[in-house]
Amino acid sequence: MLFMLHIDVSIPAEMPKEAQLALRERGNTRAMQLVNEGVIVRIWRVVGRVANFSVWDAPTLEALHELVMSMPLFPLHEDQCHAIDRPPRDAVC
Amino acid sequence: MLFMLHIDVSIPAEMPKEAQLALRERGNTRAMQLVNEGVIVRIWRVVGRVANFSVWDAPTLEALHELVMSMPLFPLHEDQCHAIDRPPRDAVC
Amino acid sequence: MLFMLHIDVSIPAEMPKEAQLALRERGNTRAMQLVNEGVIVRIWRVVGRVANFSVWDAPTLEALHELVMSMPLFPLHEDQCHAIDRPPRDAVC
Amino acid sequence: MLFMLHIDVSIPAEMPKEAQLALRERGNTRAMQLVNEGVIVRIWRVVGRVANFSVWDAPTLEALHELVMSMPLFPLHEDQCHAIDRPPRDAVC
Amino acid sequence: MLFMLHIDVSIPAEMPKEAQLALRERGNTRAMQLVNEGVIVRIWRVVGRVANFSVWDAPTLEALHELVMSMPLFPLHEDQCHAIDRPPRDAVC
Amino acid sequence: MLFMLHIDVSIPAEMPKEAQLALRERGNTRAMQLVNEGVIVRIWRVVGRVANFSVWDAPTLEALHELVMSMPLFPLHEDQCHAIDRPPRDAVC
Amino acid sequence: MLFMLHIDVSIPAEMPKEAQLALRERGNTRAMQLVNEGVIVRIWRVVGRVANFSVWDAPTLEALHELVMSMPLFPLHEDQCHAIDRPPRDAVC
Amino acid sequence: MLFMLHIDVSIPAEMPKEAQLALRERGNTRAMQLVNEGVIVRIWRVVGRVANFSVWDAPTLEALHELVMSMPLFPLHEDQCHAIDRPPRDAVC
Amino acid sequence: MLFMLHIDVSIPAEMPKEAQLALRERGNTRAMQLVNEGVIVRIWRVVGRVANFSVWDAPTLEALHELVMSMPLFPLHEDQCHAIDRPPRDAVC
Amino acid sequence: MLFMLHIDVSIPAEMPKEAQLALRERGNTRAMQLVNEGVIVRIWRVVGRVANFSVWDAPTLEALHELVMSMPLFPLHEDQCHAIDRPPRDAVC
Repeated sequence: MLFMLHIDVSIPAEMPKEAQLALRERGNTRAMQLVNEGVIVRIWRVVGRVANFSVWDAPTLEALHELVMSMPLFPLHEDQCHAIDRPPRDAVC
Repeated sequence: MLFMLHIDVSIPAEMPKEAQLALRERGNTRAMQLVNEGVIVRIWRVVGRVANFSVWDAPTLEALHELVMSMPLFPLHEDQCHAIDRPPRDAVC
Repeated sequence: MLFMLHIDVSIPAEMPKEAQLALRERGNTRAMQLVNEGVIVRIWRVVGRVANFSVWDAPTLEALHELVMSMPLFPLHEDQCHAIDRPPRDAVC
Repeated sequence: MLFMLHIDVSIPAEMPKEAQLALRERGNTRAMQLVNEGVIVRIWRVVGRVANFSVWDAPTLEALHELVMSMPLFPLHEDQCHAIDRPPRDAVC
Repeated sequence: MLFMLHIDVSIPAEMPKEAQLALRERGNTRAMQLVNEGVIVRIWRVVGRVANFSVWDAPTLEALHELVMSMPLFPLHEDQCHAIDRPPRDAVC
Repeated sequence: MLFMLHIDVSIPAEMPKEAQLALRERGNTRAMQLVNEGVIVRIWRVVGRVANFSVWDAPTLEALHELVMSMPLFPLHEDQCHAIDRPPRDAVC
Repeated sequence: MLFMLHIDVSIPAEMPKEAQLALRERGNTRAMQLVNEGVIVRIWRVVGRVANFSVWDAPTLEALHELVMSMPLFPLHEDQCHAIDRPPRDAVC
Repeated sequence: MLFMLHIDVSIPAEMPKEAQLALRERGNTRAMQLVNEGVIVRIWRVVGRVANFSVWDAPTLEALHELVMSMPLFPLHEDQCHAIDRPPRDAVC
Repeated sequence: MLFMLHIDVSIPAEMPKEAQLALRERGNTRAMQLVNEGVIVRIWRVVGRVANFSVWDAPTLEALHELVMSMPLFPLHEDQCHAIDRPPRDAVC
Repeated sequence: MLFMLHIDVSIPAEMPKEAQLALRERGNTRAMQLVNEGVIVRIWRVVGRVANFSVWDAPTLEALHELVMSMPLFPLHEDQCHAIDRPPRDAVC
């Protein structure tokens, strides 16, 4: 079961530079774990923003929910979460 | 050079059912051409909407522009177009 | 697999009264079919609007997509579609 | 008298992790009380967000108001509150 | 049970002047009926707009829904519908 | 001269509970003064929100401005302020 | 009693060029009448848009409402209407 | 060269009352200077908000920019800035 | 005196293909005239949209207004118009 | 490869004046470096706002991303980033 996440991160301006770096590092580490476990099957950065698109694969909705909640940057996200499927060849839209 | 398109189609309610079908058929045909030519490298439908996410690969911005403009459903789209890249392993966000 | 749909119908002002009634009747008939088939498991009208909330149950995302697309009022909808789950007792939010 | 609440929680990024957990625990405890008292008659989490849909049943508008205000997470909510009814079989929309 | 409706009417620019007048006349007639029946208990025009605020009193949510739907201008409305109550003297907000 | 205020209060999540209560109490006290002085001629709470609708009567625009500015909760308000009038019986909209 | 109107005109693209010109001419004629009668006391065009700001002076809210409604372009307006006053020298904001 | 500024001030709720007053006093002092120098040629408060409309006259765009930036309340403003002109009598819109 | 225009064209879906082409051709012809006359000093297409950014140079605001209004696609535009200047080297923002 | 950035800076009101100045100075210094290196090929301030438009030229999307991320004011930006191209003479839109 696939989901497209569009995550747009707003790091508060008043957070010290080192705290920002530490937070982003933890976010990267966790994302790479999920890539290695096959949960995040694709990921692209949005050029010019602290944002990305990623395709998630999870066996159940409950599992997906727990996985998204485990992201360290979570409270800084404005994200959109869309269930997606691979269209049949003749019905793209 | 990669771009993520998020296309959300609004078919006018007053358009006759057959015209809608013909239009969507032409849209599907053109999309499949672009898939076969390697321009659209991934495509997912958004479940529950006439919408999709697609990853486009084009050699130049000019080429990308012409390709997007060639979509038959174009004037019905509300779309967002983001330049994306594949992040290095340790800098997802 | 459960989804919450929040459907808000905009009937075009210039559509003749009888066409509106015919359309809403077909919408109601189809909705009742889906209720009888166990696809729509709950439905509530929003008081004071042509709108409703409904809980859909479908075996796959592909099936859900086809079912939503089969609604006669579809091009008139502005709808939101959220994957939902029944929370465990101690983790409502 | 039924109401649909769509609650979307924004936990401030700068709130310490433990304070966040304590707050969500109190929110869960109170929600479960309301479930046991029959005030919240249904509840679903939105997958991938700190958000939920819930159906509330209250004898009067005044009672409903006091009950919603009693939620510990209240100032962190962006919520929408819709009066709803169970539609007759032939008038879903 | 009280509701505040904030109704903002968008008459389509291309509708002929006479049709507009006829429609507004039917809207006024129906509104005055509801005033006489005690359903609309207060009504104010918004100065400088085709818009108004009105307080509705209905015995049930189902009744309220039917009454709002009976307004001739309905498909032209963008309206907001809020359940309201008269606050106790010491708890206005 | 009448005005409809739609006030929606956002109490900052990080404000301590007692400060919140003290602020709301001062807001209630001031509102009741204005009710007793005949400035606020009607007031309704919005069910399920820290929000209300109120009808204000003031002899001049300057007077109205000073009265609204005197509300203790002012910097926490997102409010809308509409000049309104009582429509003649046959021209509600 | 002063009001600031910010009027932004959307002429439908499908309206024939001559109808557009006739409509704008009638709008200009009516505006000039109101200028001559002292109702519109100032008017500025917004550079690069079919839009303007104007200051209206009317003895009552009822009078203002009728005057705004008398504008020929009315159904094409998206306008905002703010009650304003001339601030005392030491309290501009 | 004329510009219409629509300034809407959001004073942070957590700023102490005296700091707020001091800030608004400095804002008023600077605005009055600009009025005396003929830069701000008109100014109106928006009734019921900490907001105003003002007409600015500056010899060049560079000069205008420096003048707006000199306002003490600047970082608290959400403002809109429109180039305007006095329309010829027969072309108001 | 420089202005940045961000023009986003919405061609109505129901306009016949030839009418669309004719309109865009007239738009291009007029834009090229303005380029040749030195009014439009720079122009860029937005990749993947019928949209562009352009820098306009006009001796007065009145002249700029007439020039923008002369664009054949005008009623189809949603555009934003910003006065801009070339910043001094040490004050870009 | 060209990109148009529209950067709108929100400096938090509670940041001390000197910190604001230091931050803007660092932002200016970095922007001037990028101008000297030929990355930012044009830059205009938006009159009356802490905002600017700039045209960036970068050999790859990855390079562009790193360059934008290197701006000192980054977490304070609300920016939009559009891929652009120089249109052929006869196809401006």
